[in-house]
Amino acid sequence: MREQALGRHLILEIWDADPHLLDDAHALEQLLLQAARAANATVIQSVFHHFNPYGVSGVVVIAESHLTIHTWPEYRYAAIDIFTCGPKMDLEAAVEVIAAGLGGRMVQLEISRGQGVRRAQRQPLALSAAQ
Amino acid sequence: MREQALGRHLILEIWDADPHLLDDAHALEQLLLQAARAANATVIQSVFHHFNPYGVSGVVVIAESHLTIHTWPEYRYAAIDIFTCGPKMDLEAAVEVIAAGLGGRMVQLEISRGQGVRRAQRQPLALSAAQ
Repeated sequence: MREQALGRHLILEIWDADPHLLDDAHALEQLLLQAARAANATVIQSVFHHFNPYGVSGVVVIAESHLTIHTWPEYRYAAIDIFTCGPKMDLEAAVEVIAAGLGGRMVQLEISRGQGVRRAQRQPLALSAAQ
Repeated sequence: MREQALGRHLILEIWDADPHLLDDAHALEQLLLQAARAANATVIQSVFHHFNPYGVSGVVVIAESHLTIHTWPEYRYAAIDIFTCGPKMDLEAAVEVIAAGLGGRMVQLEISRGQGVRRAQRQPLALSAAQ
């Protein structure tokens, strides 16, 4: 089924991670950038914010879609998403970087995005004509 | 179950949308910002990119997490995620704005993030002591 999808979307739930790391926006940005590079992604831009009293939200926009992280240090919990398209992406490598960096326990769910879209008629010419 | 989760994550699959709108980074940015406002979100930053020959990736970072969109205009398809935390968020209002703006057909999936985390011991003091 996967070959009929346009994107792979990994949903990572991480518990029991180091709360100080989960509250360090700079360290988390470096970790997600490292994960993006490990996945052969082309990084376009990253945006990370620390919230008071604690917690970090971060997004790495890549040419192949995105990585996001939201942390609740007080619960030692992080929610990470890796959304990619393109056959050259190595999502497993990105997951390994994140797992090694954050520690704790990880539950992983993969969702195929755009499933079945390729069965519909592709219409590149109609779009080109309008540009 | 939902009250035990830290975040609500809506996954939207949209087919048969207007391909010209799906290729218009500025219009999509305005639409997602409008959706964020409708959901009572506090917008921190938005990043939108148009890809050649077509397609848009966009992220709206909100204080309550994020909205993302990735489009394949040649397939009339868009993948949208709305990730929020906080009881004041009105996700349904955001979905209404997006559905009205993009048209087409939408399939919606909701995932509870951080499910069961609140059952673990919250540790705010340990974190505060380290800051």
